[in-house]
Amino acid sequence: GARKGYSLDEIVDGILKNDRVILARAITLVESNAPKHIEKAQQILNRILPYTGNSLRIGITGVPGAGKSTFIEALGSFLCNKGHRVAVLAVDPSSSITGGSILGDKTRMEKLSRDKRAFIRPSPSGGTLGGVNRKTRETMLLCEAAGYDVILIETIGVGQSEVVVRSMVDLFALLVLTGAGDELQGMKKGVMELADLIIVNKADGDNEQKAMVAKDEYNRIVHYLRPATEGWQTKALTCSAYYEKGIDRIWEEMQNFEKNTKASGVFQKRRASQIKDWIYSMIKDELEQKFFNHPQVKKVLPEIEKEVVEGRQPVTQAVQYLFEQYEKRE
Amino acid sequence: GARKGYSLDEIVDGILKNDRVILARAITLVESNAPKHIEKAQQILNRILPYTGNSLRIGITGVPGAGKSTFIEALGSFLCNKGHRVAVLAVDPSSSITGGSILGDKTRMEKLSRDKRAFIRPSPSGGTLGGVNRKTRETMLLCEAAGYDVILIETIGVGQSEVVVRSMVDLFALLVLTGAGDELQGMKKGVMELADLIIVNKADGDNEQKAMVAKDEYNRIVHYLRPATEGWQTKALTCSAYYEKGIDRIWEEMQNFEKNTKASGVFQKRRASQIKDWIYSMIKDELEQKFFNHPQVKKVLPEIEKEVVEGRQPVTQAVQYLFEQYEKRE
Repeated sequence: GARKGYSLDEIVDGILKNDRVILARAITLVESNAPKHIEKAQQILNRILPYTGNSLRIGITGVPGAGKSTFIEALGSFLCNKGHRVAVLAVDPSSSITGGSILGDKTRMEKLSRDKRAFIRPSPSGGTLGGVNRKTRETMLLCEAAGYDVILIETIGVGQSEVVVRSMVDLFALLVLTGAGDELQGMKKGVMELADLIIVNKADGDNEQKAMVAKDEYNRIVHYLRPATEGWQTKALTCSAYYEKGIDRIWEEMQNFEKNTKASGVFQKRRASQIKDWIYSMIKDELEQKFFNHPQVKKVLPEIEKEVVEGRQPVTQAVQYLFEQYEKRE
Repeated sequence: GARKGYSLDEIVDGILKNDRVILARAITLVESNAPKHIEKAQQILNRILPYTGNSLRIGITGVPGAGKSTFIEALGSFLCNKGHRVAVLAVDPSSSITGGSILGDKTRMEKLSRDKRAFIRPSPSGGTLGGVNRKTRETMLLCEAAGYDVILIETIGVGQSEVVVRSMVDLFALLVLTGAGDELQGMKKGVMELADLIIVNKADGDNEQKAMVAKDEYNRIVHYLRPATEGWQTKALTCSAYYEKGIDRIWEEMQNFEKNTKASGVFQKRRASQIKDWIYSMIKDELEQKFFNHPQVKKVLPEIEKEVVEGRQPVTQAVQYLFEQYEKRE
């Protein structure tokens, strides 16, 4: 049917009252690339800003097959049962290419998606990592204004998506499986150093013993890595997301993390530096978009790049030439 | 005295004949920020490009006190005695701030600096990391054209200088001291994952046994990290740069690295991708310089940043406003 055109006041009030239909509509505006929608989205954000920031923002990544969806469903349900309100978002810069989207298949989180205390939003489709970054951050703010006090942000682990999610959350958890040695083959470089918690999933049945061994191994390894968060020693824990075992212990550790980092001021310091970094990364994205989408630059770049790689032109000269093309504004 | 104004032909010929005075003069042009000098430097590079690329490019970093200068002097002298010609360069983005420059105090490499088969050039002073990056890369090309077949690039380890050096070398070595556990406190995050060789220095006298233990410890740790170079397992070795012990073994390993990576094609692939990355990083640097040095942007940025951090303005809106200021070209 025809969509009702909500007024700015209606949307803001709806979000603050946690009207899920209006919240979803506001997120759609945030996800749109149309200038008219962007403008309206910014007006909404302007109004709801005072009501944001009061959640614990948790990023979750994992090696392939680690069971991220099952874990998020288990943790989300556990938290809802404890009286929390949980929003589940996703960063998936690949969804524009593959057409698929994580969390898009909601049946993967059937139980949680039926829970009225939870709000699940698939990854925005289309656009660059920078675009997904902005959309996810702004969606997070809308969810906070709607009263969700735990935000779980899943990353599919493509490209730089872990770094992007790390840059928008307070706590970052890495889901792994047993057998740290082999495991590391499938783990992206540097990901372990982003994690505040390493969670060895599928610690059940025959696998429980092996999971305990893996946990100890990870606890040894992280000792050699610099901590992801100042003043917090990264810890490995086990759980069985499928049997919902060990989730309480993980939540306890997450709360310890929040308590410690708030007491030391690291939590607040990170939030402030994250927002500054966001400004700078948006500026950089925008500058690069403008440059590399400039028709004249686009036209000459492939040949210039080839000449440089083949040693027929020095880099500085090539870059100077590209900027001469760029300054020729249409 | 008055500097002779060499012609382009004289400079190019001088470099190719390894006239050290002319090589130094060409490097001075490359290091200059004056448009006239930049233009002349690019003409020189254009001409010498066919004679570049035939060296092994080695980056060397180290934790504070690890003895980088002593090691470079020992390795450099060893290589000169084997008939190699060695150029020693440095990346030190801090030298513009502190006034000091690594390798500036040549007495630290007294022996090597007297060797006619070696060429030592202090870090260019002034400018951004991007500027230092360009200058060091172009100096490296000039040295290669002058026939230096091993280039050693020292990094002082400030800011992102290790990443920058890693991006311009074939092999990256990390110098450490005994006691990996404590050691890691002084080691920058992620640096170990950049290294192809970890060299435990000061393996002499009472310290030799401890150095062996540290070496074994590092060999265990690197097993848990993803290799810095595809198909090459990072190795830890010991040496005593002061007593020139173990340098032969390190050079052997460096040659193994070169042989292996050339056989697999990883060497060539990295060189090609490094030059592409250089183009893109120069473009990004230039775009950011232009933006953040724009008078109107400079004027409003501090206040805008403050408003955003304090939650009084949404990020996207702030960035849009900054771009409106930027588009107001003077």
